[in-house]
Amino acid sequence: MTRNAEFEGWVQAGQELLERYLQQHLPASTLAPQRLHEAMRYAVLEGGKRVRPLLALAAGELATAPLEPLIAVGASVELIHAYSLVHDDLPAMDNDILRRGKPTCHKQFNEALALLTGDTLQSLAFQWLSDPRLGLDPARQLQLVQQLALASGSRGMGGGQAMDLENTNQNPTLPELEAMHLKKTGALIRAAVLMGAHCGPPLEEKAQRHLAHYANCIGLAFQVVDDVLDAEADTSVLGKTAGKDAAANKTTYASTMGLSQARAFAQELLEDALRALSQLGPRAERLEQLAHFIVHRSH
Amino acid sequence: MTRNAEFEGWVQAGQELLERYLQQHLPASTLAPQRLHEAMRYAVLEGGKRVRPLLALAAGELATAPLEPLIAVGASVELIHAYSLVHDDLPAMDNDILRRGKPTCHKQFNEALALLTGDTLQSLAFQWLSDPRLGLDPARQLQLVQQLALASGSRGMGGGQAMDLENTNQNPTLPELEAMHLKKTGALIRAAVLMGAHCGPPLEEKAQRHLAHYANCIGLAFQVVDDVLDAEADTSVLGKTAGKDAAANKTTYASTMGLSQARAFAQELLEDALRALSQLGPRAERLEQLAHFIVHRSH
Repeated sequence: MTRNAEFEGWVQAGQELLERYLQQHLPASTLAPQRLHEAMRYAVLEGGKRVRPLLALAAGELATAPLEPLIAVGASVELIHAYSLVHDDLPAMDNDILRRGKPTCHKQFNEALALLTGDTLQSLAFQWLSDPRLGLDPARQLQLVQQLALASGSRGMGGGQAMDLENTNQNPTLPELEAMHLKKTGALIRAAVLMGAHCGPPLEEKAQRHLAHYANCIGLAFQVVDDVLDAEADTSVLGKTAGKDAAANKTTYASTMGLSQARAFAQELLEDALRALSQLGPRAERLEQLAHFIVHRSH
Repeated sequence: MTRNAEFEGWVQAGQELLERYLQQHLPASTLAPQRLHEAMRYAVLEGGKRVRPLLALAAGELATAPLEPLIAVGASVELIHAYSLVHDDLPAMDNDILRRGKPTCHKQFNEALALLTGDTLQSLAFQWLSDPRLGLDPARQLQLVQQLALASGSRGMGGGQAMDLENTNQNPTLPELEAMHLKKTGALIRAAVLMGAHCGPPLEEKAQRHLAHYANCIGLAFQVVDDVLDAEADTSVLGKTAGKDAAANKTTYASTMGLSQARAFAQELLEDALRALSQLGPRAERLEQLAHFIVHRSH
């Protein structure tokens, strides 16, 4: 088996564990209120690459964390991500009709239900994360709740989205663009990595710092690659509307730097991330492979 | 000092403690992203009777809980309540322009920002509730997070709102109306009571049951009174648009039972609540007074 095939097997196994958790723990669509539960399942299941849960798993491997809480952590982070997509797609925000190759939640259901779907997915993330059966030390588990709340809120993902709203009307500088994306996309990716590691015995402070640096680099790289893909990919490959940044007159890494410079910037961030990992020993291998995966993906 | 004046003093002291907590713990509007933080403060500060935090305080007195975590619990519950109002008022939901005597959040700012304001207020509730400095036993604090997440989510408040969406098109029966309101309004009121008590040493199981029954009764009574007030009060007294249930063709307790029957039903629920409290000894006095306050309020 080649190194790549071995990694792909690991990715698939992780995705399957996650899907099973989501399938089993999302409220059944036979349970009242049925339409809401149907919409919640629609917004979460069969979708996406599950990059954030995979990062949590990989960081958990680095920290020799047990598997069970790692899956719950990854699933909680994924719920926050899914809720943010549902709300982002609403007419008041990006007004998008296509997501993961399917109609967006408000197109499939309606706006009011999509709003509630996002709201209750967020609550569910905190419900899962505070489950007393995760088998973690309660004080440490409470810190996981705190980490996810901070990463989601006005100083994290939600704050980055608010900064992005202003981006559409102004021409942000490159540092402003970076500050926005470190929150909008970066905060949750960083949380996935740090929360995964947090499920194991505490890392040394120096290792923590390297891991946080890795997380920041790949969070930003993820967004740069997203911008490049939006500018050059087909809607059919992307599974969501391509070229919408340009249509919305949004400043992106692609529009500010040009495509080839943006690609080079993603590569720099990757190398920076890999340098940080090289301090962390052989257990960091999955994180290394995921960094390559994030930067070299085609959708 | 009359008994009533003494209670009013207690209410005011509790409200002031809460306002101070909110003022200090909501992100400053000088902090980036400023507009979002401004909108979050707008949606939460100077508003409402703070019934839920007062219930948490009163239940905490019953359970001899320390004051500090009670304030944080009350503030977290109030954030969930405030976020639900912001989202409820959006055009896709109730499309309302007036709340607490001021323009609704999306009128004052815009729809996209109001959406993010609600989203980040929810995250902030879980951030406050998981603060390691609350001085509670971590395992018990984790249970508070779990209680609030359940009360907010698809089997609680959010689910009740989804049931309410369908109410506008159909004619729900009285039991259906009750099932909806026990979630939509009741879940968070019940959580405020039970979470307040949870901050103290554990109550006996029988006392727990009485307290939960009290909480259910006043949660429902709160909604019945809301319906009556909507049907008969002035917009200027109410601080929000009056008569909107009838205008939206919504089935309410007032429209189903008639006004005088609905008033009698609220009185029955009050007496039921008071009977449950009578099993709990003299420390339940504040809860008793709050039940009267909820049923006999004029806005």
